[in-house]
Amino acid sequence: MNRGKLNVGMIGFGARGTLLLRDIILPLGKADIKSVCDSYEDRAEKAADQVEEVQGKRPTVTLDYHEVIADPEVDTVIITCAWEDHIAIAIEAMRAGKAVGMEVGGAYTVEQCWDLVRTYEETKTPIMMLENCCYGRREMMAMHMAELGVLGTVVHCKGGYHHDLRDEVSGGEKYRHYRLRNYLNRNCENYPTHELGPIAQLLHINHGNRMVSLTSTSSKAAGLHEYIADRMGEEHELAHVAFAQGDVVTTVIRCAGGETITLTLDTTLPRYYSRDFTVRGTKGMYEEVTDSVFLDKQHEAYDFKWKEQWGNAEEYSKEYEHPMWKQYKEEGVRGSHDGMDWLVFREFFDSILNETSCPIDVYDTAAWMCITALSEESILAGGRPVMIPDFTKGAWTTR
Amino acid sequence: MNRGKLNVGMIGFGARGTLLLRDIILPLGKADIKSVCDSYEDRAEKAADQVEEVQGKRPTVTLDYHEVIADPEVDTVIITCAWEDHIAIAIEAMRAGKAVGMEVGGAYTVEQCWDLVRTYEETKTPIMMLENCCYGRREMMAMHMAELGVLGTVVHCKGGYHHDLRDEVSGGEKYRHYRLRNYLNRNCENYPTHELGPIAQLLHINHGNRMVSLTSTSSKAAGLHEYIADRMGEEHELAHVAFAQGDVVTTVIRCAGGETITLTLDTTLPRYYSRDFTVRGTKGMYEEVTDSVFLDKQHEAYDFKWKEQWGNAEEYSKEYEHPMWKQYKEEGVRGSHDGMDWLVFREFFDSILNETSCPIDVYDTAAWMCITALSEESILAGGRPVMIPDFTKGAWTTR
Repeated sequence: MNRGKLNVGMIGFGARGTLLLRDIILPLGKADIKSVCDSYEDRAEKAADQVEEVQGKRPTVTLDYHEVIADPEVDTVIITCAWEDHIAIAIEAMRAGKAVGMEVGGAYTVEQCWDLVRTYEETKTPIMMLENCCYGRREMMAMHMAELGVLGTVVHCKGGYHHDLRDEVSGGEKYRHYRLRNYLNRNCENYPTHELGPIAQLLHINHGNRMVSLTSTSSKAAGLHEYIADRMGEEHELAHVAFAQGDVVTTVIRCAGGETITLTLDTTLPRYYSRDFTVRGTKGMYEEVTDSVFLDKQHEAYDFKWKEQWGNAEEYSKEYEHPMWKQYKEEGVRGSHDGMDWLVFREFFDSILNETSCPIDVYDTAAWMCITALSEESILAGGRPVMIPDFTKGAWTTR
Repeated sequence: MNRGKLNVGMIGFGARGTLLLRDIILPLGKADIKSVCDSYEDRAEKAADQVEEVQGKRPTVTLDYHEVIADPEVDTVIITCAWEDHIAIAIEAMRAGKAVGMEVGGAYTVEQCWDLVRTYEETKTPIMMLENCCYGRREMMAMHMAELGVLGTVVHCKGGYHHDLRDEVSGGEKYRHYRLRNYLNRNCENYPTHELGPIAQLLHINHGNRMVSLTSTSSKAAGLHEYIADRMGEEHELAHVAFAQGDVVTTVIRCAGGETITLTLDTTLPRYYSRDFTVRGTKGMYEEVTDSVFLDKQHEAYDFKWKEQWGNAEEYSKEYEHPMWKQYKEEGVRGSHDGMDWLVFREFFDSILNETSCPIDVYDTAAWMCITALSEESILAGGRPVMIPDFTKGAWTTR
């Protein structure tokens, strides 16, 4: 079934697209880049330079993504542009029969997510959300531990996107970054899929379980204002603008199986980077913040001196490293974001080349992305619980 | 104003009351224990033995708390009994003009909290909730940092009661412990005041700020069932009982000032002890889990290698230790729970002896305790936001 190499059109060369092209997609060697697109010409040309340097042949350069999709040379579209266009481009590409790899982001409306699902069901064109955190080493280790039963019945998971983006957001004009307009105008869990992706997989969402409802609550927005006034000066045009996006958004999700998930968006206050990944079961826990494993009947002696066990997860990785990561480490970890990016693209390309089902499918993509729109609704309604659609239309009980 | 020593009647000698009497109240030397009470005679007699050994005189022993309150020798009542009776005893004592020190716990109804406030306003009898965590070393350090402005505008706080109580709860019959009946019958944030107490103080709740609403969401209850079946056997009478209390309850509180508070109850799954105390401001953070301080413009270099800063709070304590703790360390830290118990009782006794206002007053007590009843309501209503009463009746804007 292996078709050799994919012929890729790639849309969006901000920081993420540029990095992925250089560090992952070209080195992976599973795709010929046939077409590159960005609404800014300089970005598209720079991407073409990169491709030409590696592949020896300059790809088509366009500022219009419709041309990428229409290009008969292109069989696969990779979407790394601003959040707002992800779903529209994905739908157009699927309709044109082009396989879709779509970078992460949240949806603006629930209806978009239904459109994505409908289009997939009509066209059966493969689509995968490129959620790299599903391939994080510790995420996969915890998943493996859960599969082995080491954690017992999993009852609660926690995750978040804790990343100080004050420079990126406030420098939005300079960086031509879409986050600025989003932070100015919307208040929501705008980046749910780190860490909802790996959590949803661990909890078998859409495969015997589903997310049924959520509440979302936002703090005030103070971080960006103070940052801008301090670093860019009181006279800067953004210094007296009201940002809609609260600094910390806490979303609590209930699952059909009785599990809860706490998601936090936390991107405009000073702090270190963390995905705060935590899995709690009746027999044990994994916690990213202290990179530690607590196992029932083994760690009680440390209940009040856990500091002595901080970082013990590395020790447990000898036994519980996920098989994919075990092999990956032997082969040599590659590329950005601690090696996750390499894995997610490898898995995407392989699933298209081998015509196997995408490990993150359209139902996962819709379920994870809709959290953004639903969190916006819940926040606007004072934290009211909102129902999460069942995009599988009942099939989750048997999938 | 100092009246020398208080004449104390103490009600409730389970684990907590017994420990406090022995390690804190008797050694503090600020109170003569005149009367001891427990509904179990052996507990009351054992407490009397302890008192007699230290004070040389046996206190009155009674199984009826009304007698403690009515005792003309008693001027101060300390309540360390089961949660259910805290407020009723406090109200009766206040009406009798006996100062009240009340151990922590949650309220069963919001109306009880109003009754507590009304009784105080009618009688002006001093009452203080003995929330020891308000005197935790790191809690007070973070409070001090916030007061000094080091953390900037505080936007979000997090805390919880993460304590594996599976043995205590499941052994409820053996231990004669009230938690068992609560876990069997109720599902709520049953122990909010660790860590809401210190957070509320830091956010100036009832003093220029107030908590306005909350949502509460519960996971399923799996931990106790599996623990009991495993440790006590499938044939144990509790092995097939359905516990009402979910394993993890997540409560998100909104404040009038736009801050959010995330509280977690987490007592029936294996894990290490933590109060997960976290303070997030526009200039910095304190985080208990890694016992670390992150300061804006100082720690950016560690954004992706925070592990190197784990435990750095001890270093910052040189500069930011709370003055009360600085002095306390010089005098020598005493008693249980890392020295917090000593401080909270010392502050309580001193405020009564010196006739100064209690550092945790009736409005704080009502506001913190009502979270339990409101979380129960929110959980039952599928996570619906519920309003938090303003027990100050508007006075919070000027207090």
